[in-house]
Amino acid sequence: MQHIAQHRRPPIGRESIEPIASLDDLRRRLTQLEPPDAAAAAAARARQASLTKPPGSLGRLEALAVWLAAWQGREPPTLRRVGALVFVGNHGVAARGVSAYPAAVTAQMVANFEAGGAAINQLCRIAGADLVVVPLDLDRPTADFCVAPAMSEAECVDALARGRAAVADLDLLAVGEMGIANTTSAAALCAALHGGEAATWAGPGTGLDAAGVARKAAVIERALEHHRAALDDPLEVLRRLGGREIAAMAGAILAARARRIPVLLDGLVAGAAAAVLQALAPGALDHCQAAHRSAEPAHGRLLQKLGLRPLLDLDMRLGEASGAALAILLCRAALACHTGMATFAEAGVSGRSG
Amino acid sequence: MQHIAQHRRPPIGRESIEPIASLDDLRRRLTQLEPPDAAAAAAARARQASLTKPPGSLGRLEALAVWLAAWQGREPPTLRRVGALVFVGNHGVAARGVSAYPAAVTAQMVANFEAGGAAINQLCRIAGADLVVVPLDLDRPTADFCVAPAMSEAECVDALARGRAAVADLDLLAVGEMGIANTTSAAALCAALHGGEAATWAGPGTGLDAAGVARKAAVIERALEHHRAALDDPLEVLRRLGGREIAAMAGAILAARARRIPVLLDGLVAGAAAAVLQALAPGALDHCQAAHRSAEPAHGRLLQKLGLRPLLDLDMRLGEASGAALAILLCRAALACHTGMATFAEAGVSGRSG
Repeated sequence: MQHIAQHRRPPIGRESIEPIASLDDLRRRLTQLEPPDAAAAAAARARQASLTKPPGSLGRLEALAVWLAAWQGREPPTLRRVGALVFVGNHGVAARGVSAYPAAVTAQMVANFEAGGAAINQLCRIAGADLVVVPLDLDRPTADFCVAPAMSEAECVDALARGRAAVADLDLLAVGEMGIANTTSAAALCAALHGGEAATWAGPGTGLDAAGVARKAAVIERALEHHRAALDDPLEVLRRLGGREIAAMAGAILAARARRIPVLLDGLVAGAAAAVLQALAPGALDHCQAAHRSAEPAHGRLLQKLGLRPLLDLDMRLGEASGAALAILLCRAALACHTGMATFAEAGVSGRSG
Repeated sequence: MQHIAQHRRPPIGRESIEPIASLDDLRRRLTQLEPPDAAAAAAARARQASLTKPPGSLGRLEALAVWLAAWQGREPPTLRRVGALVFVGNHGVAARGVSAYPAAVTAQMVANFEAGGAAINQLCRIAGADLVVVPLDLDRPTADFCVAPAMSEAECVDALARGRAAVADLDLLAVGEMGIANTTSAAALCAALHGGEAATWAGPGTGLDAAGVARKAAVIERALEHHRAALDDPLEVLRRLGGREIAAMAGAILAARARRIPVLLDGLVAGAAAAVLQALAPGALDHCQAAHRSAEPAHGRLLQKLGLRPLLDLDMRLGEASGAALAILLCRAALACHTGMATFAEAGVSGRSG
């Protein structure tokens, strides 16, 4: 189709998808963010206006179709190759009893993903998405961030680079994670990036009781105290308070931008990874949609800070990219309407009266 | 599987799916509502508790699986035969200029449905649902309800019966409508059933401007005045202020209950049909989920009155069962997790720490 080729914009250059060499290299890439394709977006909007429905009556489905066009850089957009990436990490802070589950569950769940038994396996099947699980040095947890940086610079760069390398040539990417204790890390990141007491960001995670949540908040407060002097730099926040799976998600989100792949962000932990990028470069998340609002209370607050309106709000709090996988279904519905509906002219339907 | 047979409950009796003879016959049926199957629901909840995820972490997906089990009367529930019913009617009140589109669009859209060019055709394809469109005497609009009852008793009973007859043997039913001017009728029903000024229920519908909305509110106010003495009886409200597609939806929702078919309600107009049933018999909508909250402002208010929490909130306001069709995807995702996930025991995943 002629107009596809016309609106197909290539990535800005090979260097943008080369390995990340250092945190400063990452900073530089964030100054070269791909813009949306205004022509593809305009063509998608024009098509929406021609379809047999009152203008705007498909609401966010219309917006999703235009968003896919703008970030893929073509009209119509396609959803042939859809992927879900689940990054997995272990956290030294888990030893402080901040999760309802033992740290051994992280590796056990990777086996469950591989055997096809987890929620995300079923959701990817329903959504027509290829699931790729990336375990990151599970036998080498990050350091306990109450007393040391979670990662060395080399470890953080490695995790970012592995996230970046995991992004294949896709039309749409769902990004999520698994890792016992990682809502503690995510809450610490949120507090460091957006301020507020640890207690306002700490939540029950996989199911802590009130005493457990209080313990988790105290652990986060201690970590913030320990690293206080270094928290002005969002990449230092990531290195000191994050985790490998969180750094990897940040790397993947950024790689998707360079490759013109729209991204669906999962819950709180994916949101914390995204928040690091936005703190470094406003606009870094323009190619992302918040797939859902998690039941973890901090997530709604974080989405407000990021200016993202979630597509779904189903009281989910599992992680594993489960909310992001569900939102793939909405994108498929949006695209089906966008490409399959008749126009007023084709269908012989009258327009507005006045 | 043994436990399916064990939890399979038959409909209460043949008489419950026989044609509706009169409005009083309908009233009688509403005293014989099928209850949920407590054993199937308990078995579904037990399975959810065994799956490899923190309890409750799939949120409303878990609740949907249990809801399907309870109302189908079997564990596990199935989604082999899923249908979408779109009832279509014309309204005498359309001549008063209460819609942004001419009344001719109703029949034109039926042709569009039949040709596969409407939004609901694409959404049913994505959702794996069989679409059935039921036009109801489009060449014979209801009477202008500002000056006369919209329908005679015979017409209202006929529409209810045709709605009832349209319900096939299904695992899940999405219910919606199309009909120029029918948000005027729905708003009038809401005002009559739930009180409040017409202006609090009148909205832009397919796209009225502020003057148009004011005109619509005045038309509704006039209709309420005209019928005031007869509005204590919800079935009289339906007959006087409703439309054929609205009565048909009420008949379909009730037929689904008798046949143990869970129902996804679409937007404001489907909600108004449902509200008639709930006004007649509290609990009449227990087998229904509100698929979404429409952008039509009255819909959110109506859902609150009905005690229904919508599954989706995507600024849609098209009708055609479009929101209900999208919610089918959530039910499919819920069932995929319910039946496809491994249990903790199967996957060798550790349970909670404490």
